[in-house]
Amino acid sequence: MDAHGAATGAAAVSGTEVAPDAAELDARDELTHCRADFVLDGPEGTVYLDGNSLGALPRSVPERLADVVEREWGRLLIRSWSESGWWTAPERTGDRIAPLVGAAPGQIVVGDSTSVNVFKAVVGAVRLVREEHGVAEGGGRDEILVDAATFPTDGYIARSAARMTGATVRAVPVSAMAEAAGPSTAVALVNHVDYRTGELHDLAAVTDAVHRAGGRVVWDVCHSAGALPVQLDADGADFAVGCTYKYLNGGPGSPAFLYVRREAQPRFDSPLPGWTSHADPFAMADGYAPGDGAVRGRVGTPDILSMLALEEALTVWDGVSVEAVRAKSLALTDFFLRRVRTYVPDGRAGRLRLTPLTPQEHERRGSQISLLCEDGSAAGGDDPAEAVMAGLHARGVVGDFRRPGVLRFGFTPLYTSFADVDRAARTLGDVLRNTGREAGS
Amino acid sequence: MDAHGAATGAAAVSGTEVAPDAAELDARDELTHCRADFVLDGPEGTVYLDGNSLGALPRSVPERLADVVEREWGRLLIRSWSESGWWTAPERTGDRIAPLVGAAPGQIVVGDSTSVNVFKAVVGAVRLVREEHGVAEGGGRDEILVDAATFPTDGYIARSAARMTGATVRAVPVSAMAEAAGPSTAVALVNHVDYRTGELHDLAAVTDAVHRAGGRVVWDVCHSAGALPVQLDADGADFAVGCTYKYLNGGPGSPAFLYVRREAQPRFDSPLPGWTSHADPFAMADGYAPGDGAVRGRVGTPDILSMLALEEALTVWDGVSVEAVRAKSLALTDFFLRRVRTYVPDGRAGRLRLTPLTPQEHERRGSQISLLCEDGSAAGGDDPAEAVMAGLHARGVVGDFRRPGVLRFGFTPLYTSFADVDRAARTLGDVLRNTGREAGS
Repeated sequence: MDAHGAATGAAAVSGTEVAPDAAELDARDELTHCRADFVLDGPEGTVYLDGNSLGALPRSVPERLADVVEREWGRLLIRSWSESGWWTAPERTGDRIAPLVGAAPGQIVVGDSTSVNVFKAVVGAVRLVREEHGVAEGGGRDEILVDAATFPTDGYIARSAARMTGATVRAVPVSAMAEAAGPSTAVALVNHVDYRTGELHDLAAVTDAVHRAGGRVVWDVCHSAGALPVQLDADGADFAVGCTYKYLNGGPGSPAFLYVRREAQPRFDSPLPGWTSHADPFAMADGYAPGDGAVRGRVGTPDILSMLALEEALTVWDGVSVEAVRAKSLALTDFFLRRVRTYVPDGRAGRLRLTPLTPQEHERRGSQISLLCEDGSAAGGDDPAEAVMAGLHARGVVGDFRRPGVLRFGFTPLYTSFADVDRAARTLGDVLRNTGREAGS
Repeated sequence: MDAHGAATGAAAVSGTEVAPDAAELDARDELTHCRADFVLDGPEGTVYLDGNSLGALPRSVPERLADVVEREWGRLLIRSWSESGWWTAPERTGDRIAPLVGAAPGQIVVGDSTSVNVFKAVVGAVRLVREEHGVAEGGGRDEILVDAATFPTDGYIARSAARMTGATVRAVPVSAMAEAAGPSTAVALVNHVDYRTGELHDLAAVTDAVHRAGGRVVWDVCHSAGALPVQLDADGADFAVGCTYKYLNGGPGSPAFLYVRREAQPRFDSPLPGWTSHADPFAMADGYAPGDGAVRGRVGTPDILSMLALEEALTVWDGVSVEAVRAKSLALTDFFLRRVRTYVPDGRAGRLRLTPLTPQEHERRGSQISLLCEDGSAAGGDDPAEAVMAGLHARGVVGDFRRPGVLRFGFTPLYTSFADVDRAARTLGDVLRNTGREAGS
């Protein structure tokens, strides 16, 4: 991707005019037609760079959801559990996600939140490892390694899983995970892409290291699913959990997914063995007997409205390759970094300093750019990132921030254009100068 | 409710004609206007008696959900977490359910499935009781009593909760629960209304007995919430979980709710401490610190589409008293039982025998009638209830069945009419005679 090689050093462009090099990049973009699949109806010139938090609305979702509500629920009522395919939606939707994360069919089930799925996966992995090593609770394999920079919920849930399985948790930077894994390791819980910095970790290498130490790995792919190629099968992941409302555009709080590697499925011993994971749920048996395959990851009655909105949202991927998405993602983030250098020379604006946290190397970069925004004045005080992001929102550029000091900009290749990127960087420069002046006054 | 005193002995009525006594009962029904709040657009004459499995669609839901999707998600995007009140929806929706189950505000949170909430409640209750008695795992208070006739998922989840807290599970009929509770009891998990038979249990008495034994009670109110008065506060319930897609009409798989008694909230130690239950979730702190109040029952990101559909569905309760619903419910089920006696004299049709499983006494009856349907022939074979229910569906009367042999008919006073009841009983008589002939041929 060097189509944007001539993009540096562009002169400032005002209003909603599109910088010529951005226009050229958009003209060459093979995914440009995908933008029409989304509703992006904000005020003129709004740039939405928060798809890493909540993906935009796919245009076909409202009509499909209206049909689900009015015909499937309203008219067919209870019959829809069979006739409208509601009952099998968790696995069917999982199989739609599967190719996006490098999984063969039959290994992903959709349902519950990411946090609940982390619980299933971590407990399931601890039990699996202990069984493989022939050790009971307290007999070894009692340590859960958790990505020290993890999104908080993973850590909270891992500690609960540890408490309930007689294990302990140790926080380890991903870069030290291979070294940390050893004879006491049961499980490593790792974020594929760091939610704060946008750093991409090496799924294959970490998995391999933990496997060599006799442990299993649970990957959190919330910030990589739909943003870049994930190779769960090929890279040996044991369990994975992922979010569907970020780069998969499933809607606010849409159900998460759980991947259990086929080889591990028969021994997956879920801590949440709800009735819909039963081998014969409608037998209403007193005794629990787990179903085979992905269905074992289910718990309660599937949440149909959100599930089918997600299923419809996934149709935007028809005919789209994750590789093309990745190529555009890198081009977008490269372009953004260059434009920020252009519009914020030397990373300074008044007393504010801007430092990219996201790695420059492509192989270590997710699909977001995080910029550390610091106030150079000794006074400190309020988080300047909060003020800067408020200024950006007021001018129609939507990213978000994470305390302390991190501006986050997510790039969704299906609908983010190079013109968006140019405008965002330019507006960031303006806002920084205004805020930096105030900060320095 | 003796308005239907003259209803017995009605002559058979054909087609979709309404029996005069049913018409009279409908004319006197003070809830009759509520039916217009629902979409009941099946083919002419369809009678829907499966609201105890999936409630009908409230008429205002499609428009509200379209607004949530198209404006709140599609246009406002991430801003809706604050501007559209998404973030606080779990507690706000909980507070709308609260008056229906006799709870003061601030004790109910909506989210996750019933099964996941059973896990939170049972583990939370075990921990609470052990703390109160100053015992550690294995030191006493290690028994979980589970309703022997429970809906299966409660039992499956209770056994998982027991395994993960070093407790054991003992199945006990609700009628023997008071006697079974003793010094080793941690928790009793009881269904308020039996999903199979429709029997209503005495929440106050069972709670009191378990409390006297030093334990706590988790009530499953899936089949009573919205169907009859539930007095969680007044009757001393410690925890309760409930479903919102049955008598609360929230839609297929809509999120469940968790009640944690105010007194127990500060000591509620959830096994699923996800980030949205944190005291300061957006601090993204490494360490977990639980929020105060109902929010402590949260786990992951709230499922907004289903949550707000439910919130809208709950508006049908505006101005409706649960007492009026209960009075009509009892009148409907009384009328149905009488009509079944009329149309199926002596409970016999060919070789088929029909026996009510639901108690005759009002104080022991929920809002459904379960009829055991048996084939008198020694041969046995296929479950006759399945064939009878298929025949009913083919003739536009929608109930469901539970193996072995149970025909279930749910009565939702907000939209079920006495004319529906008459038609259902009459059709049941016809279908039984046809099926009974075949069974006997």
